[in-house]
Amino acid sequence: MSSLKFYYDLMSQPSRALFIIFRLSGMQFEDCVVALRNGEHLTDEFKLNINRFQRVPCINDNGYKLAESVAILRYLSAKGEIPEILYPKYFVKQARVDEFLEWHHISLRITCAMYFRTIWLDPLLTGRSPTEDKIEKLRMHMERNLDIIEEVWLAKSEFLTGATLTVADIFAACEIEQTRMADYDVRIKYPKIRAWLKRVRHSCNPHYDAAHAFVYKISGTGPQAKL
Amino acid sequence: MSSLKFYYDLMSQPSRALFIIFRLSGMQFEDCVVALRNGEHLTDEFKLNINRFQRVPCINDNGYKLAESVAILRYLSAKGEIPEILYPKYFVKQARVDEFLEWHHISLRITCAMYFRTIWLDPLLTGRSPTEDKIEKLRMHMERNLDIIEEVWLAKSEFLTGATLTVADIFAACEIEQTRMADYDVRIKYPKIRAWLKRVRHSCNPHYDAAHAFVYKISGTGPQAKL
Repeated sequence: MSSLKFYYDLMSQPSRALFIIFRLSGMQFEDCVVALRNGEHLTDEFKLNINRFQRVPCINDNGYKLAESVAILRYLSAKGEIPEILYPKYFVKQARVDEFLEWHHISLRITCAMYFRTIWLDPLLTGRSPTEDKIEKLRMHMERNLDIIEEVWLAKSEFLTGATLTVADIFAACEIEQTRMADYDVRIKYPKIRAWLKRVRHSCNPHYDAAHAFVYKISGTGPQAKL
Repeated sequence: MSSLKFYYDLMSQPSRALFIIFRLSGMQFEDCVVALRNGEHLTDEFKLNINRFQRVPCINDNGYKLAESVAILRYLSAKGEIPEILYPKYFVKQARVDEFLEWHHISLRITCAMYFRTIWLDPLLTGRSPTEDKIEKLRMHMERNLDIIEEVWLAKSEFLTGATLTVADIFAACEIEQTRMADYDVRIKYPKIRAWLKRVRHSCNPHYDAAHAFVYKISGTGPQAKL
């Protein structure tokens, strides 16, 4: 058994990103699935022993507890667990990937997550549906960032930060895939994103489909139908 | 003249954080002030030559353009420009600071920024004030994260990630200071944050007060009155 415990739920976008990255890297880790739907992260025991912020993903590396997906990625890269092709070690190249990872939090991530949450999750939990006006506003915020992915990040290259797949693409794809569950089809307006998502999936499979099995199921379409 | 151009506006929270970090580090840089209030970041020239995302802060290091404050910090740390005491080089210690920097984006940062924006900036730009209900909702979201600063991050130590000041404290303080301008007084509910802000200011001065001169002026109180 590996001494690295990985706590995750494949319904969580950054959990899926790390899951794919760990599998691609051939890392050994102990699967610790946390069922968010059952509130397993909300117990006092979880707060005390696993993650004081009561979220996933997080790790326990032989007693060292760490939260936040990007911090975990960087820690494991420094330990030599992540191949350089996925997360560059040379600081000038690494900064390009970091630029995306830092950009995405309050742009792509928050707006895709809010769209998913308000349209799919909240109605499930509360029984109340959002107004058309609210949906339109959330879609506009999200598409402002999808526009930047299409027109800026993918302007000149096959992947977000250059000619090859890095962790930036994996984090971004997992955020965008989440919106499938709220019946958003990113292919309609965004041909570059559509083609890039295919490349990301192809480069990451079979781990990409394994991570997204539940997302595909909920959205009612297989990966082929959508991508 | 230094070959590092630093583009910033002291009205921007991460601009202030980098300004303080650069000054504390004794770094040489060329001041490139961008007046957001005049839309200087919205021109085609800015997009083409300075930052394709049309935001500050950003840098141009002898031709290498980089955006996103945390990515810039890591890049300059790798170049040896940031003292180890402010941003640790040993990966286990660095991960603790990274954990905060990654946590803060969609928690402390976004909620403090939304509070400031909706209560101070939007009324200035549009002439319309938010409803009491909206203000209350934003305050609640922000305080959920201030609670975590007070009860989790500052639970056991003088600074956010340990016994001494790091960049994590500087980024966090700059986000919280922004809410002064929307007349929010963090001292009322949060005694630990109040004492910690004093320590951060003291550890960073005279650069902290230089960075916040405009914030103090807008909020109508000097630093002594507030902290």
